[in-house]
Amino acid sequence: MSTLFKNEVKAYLPGFSIDCVIFGFEDGHIKVLLNKFHCIDQWMLPGGFVYVDEDVDQAAKRALKVRTGLADIFLNQFYLFGNCDRSDGEINKKILEVYEQKNQDWFLERFVTTAYFALVNISKVKLEKNAIEDTMWVDLKSLPQLHMDHNSIIMKAIESIRLLINLLPIGKELLHEKFTLPELRMLYEAILDKDLDRRNFQRRILALGYIDKLPEKRLGGAHKAPDLYSFNKEKYQENLKNGMNLIW
Amino acid sequence: MSTLFKNEVKAYLPGFSIDCVIFGFEDGHIKVLLNKFHCIDQWMLPGGFVYVDEDVDQAAKRALKVRTGLADIFLNQFYLFGNCDRSDGEINKKILEVYEQKNQDWFLERFVTTAYFALVNISKVKLEKNAIEDTMWVDLKSLPQLHMDHNSIIMKAIESIRLLINLLPIGKELLHEKFTLPELRMLYEAILDKDLDRRNFQRRILALGYIDKLPEKRLGGAHKAPDLYSFNKEKYQENLKNGMNLIW
Repeated sequence: MSTLFKNEVKAYLPGFSIDCVIFGFEDGHIKVLLNKFHCIDQWMLPGGFVYVDEDVDQAAKRALKVRTGLADIFLNQFYLFGNCDRSDGEINKKILEVYEQKNQDWFLERFVTTAYFALVNISKVKLEKNAIEDTMWVDLKSLPQLHMDHNSIIMKAIESIRLLINLLPIGKELLHEKFTLPELRMLYEAILDKDLDRRNFQRRILALGYIDKLPEKRLGGAHKAPDLYSFNKEKYQENLKNGMNLIW
Repeated sequence: MSTLFKNEVKAYLPGFSIDCVIFGFEDGHIKVLLNKFHCIDQWMLPGGFVYVDEDVDQAAKRALKVRTGLADIFLNQFYLFGNCDRSDGEINKKILEVYEQKNQDWFLERFVTTAYFALVNISKVKLEKNAIEDTMWVDLKSLPQLHMDHNSIIMKAIESIRLLINLLPIGKELLHEKFTLPELRMLYEAILDKDLDRRNFQRRILALGYIDKLPEKRLGGAHKAPDLYSFNKEKYQENLKNGMNLIW
């Protein structure tokens, strides 16, 4: 259980955890990465604890690296969940028993958790195998009942992304380097959970000025080969810095 | 020191605090409410600790009520500050000594803090006098060097507000019930820290549809009496719910 607990009792900030909502996009669907300890029957968000000598943001990066193999992920802290009835001491007690951890009373107390969302290209993620947990991608629209308040955390994460959609590099992180406009529109439709008009979408997204048309087309489909596009990273960063949709 | 400490050692979540950046608007300037313990020489953000049986959001409301006398404040959680070097054990030790608090070792350890920003009408705030701290409004542009990382927390708060400016009820919370368009523009200019074109501002803000022109004028000035406006609360709420500036 070395990835969950250090051996010393006081190795972690007590009563404090981080949880990561890792979003990917595949076959037109938004997916979320979940994990599950072998000893309990509920899926949960990949999370972790914070070392006493570690920045909280660093702990989030560490938890992501362990689960995805990726070091350079787009990660955004979005909310601290701190209701006093959110912990589940019974399940945590079982985890301690199964893994024969003693003197870890802090693990049974109330927890507050700081949640992050991450945007990743699914094809780049290598799900790391380990002895204590399983991991899997699940469609956002068919999540099971998760551990504690983790369903609510995911819902709050997708709401945050919807509100910030023009301020986030969602296309750049979630798509392949080269993409068609219909692929980009499908991503926006999946996140916003509504259909978008094809022409209006094309006009608005190109007006933002950070998508370059490439001198090549997507070949091999049944239809006319569509144009390929890519993100202009410099222009994208510049827009992000200035607040992409500030009209004032 | 009853507002700071409960008597029991285990009354609070250890290593965890909340801090509130309370913004007001007066004479064309954005102001921030600060407080200072009599025994230490640094101003700080009004903050507090979280009871073991209290929701974190509730603790923030409690800290605000103590300082402002207001129960119904617009409050938005915006970031957890969790760098491992952000605490100042020396100053906290002094506070414990001056107020003769023993067995409160948790107060000397590393703290993470969840920060909220609040928007208030300054004229409604009653600064509560008490035996252990002073409070005052300070212009955002002339803040002193504050306790720990509190200057950074304020900067992050104003940046969050700038990014979310179209999603927040800033005018409704910070202005009086009736206002002129120049007053509203001055508020936007103060928050964004830049001049805005008078005509463009007027066109854009009215196009949002939630500001009603009243059948009265502001009297008593040297110039032609300007029209008065107020927020249409129902339309305002509806726009907030739908994400005020979502173009997709």
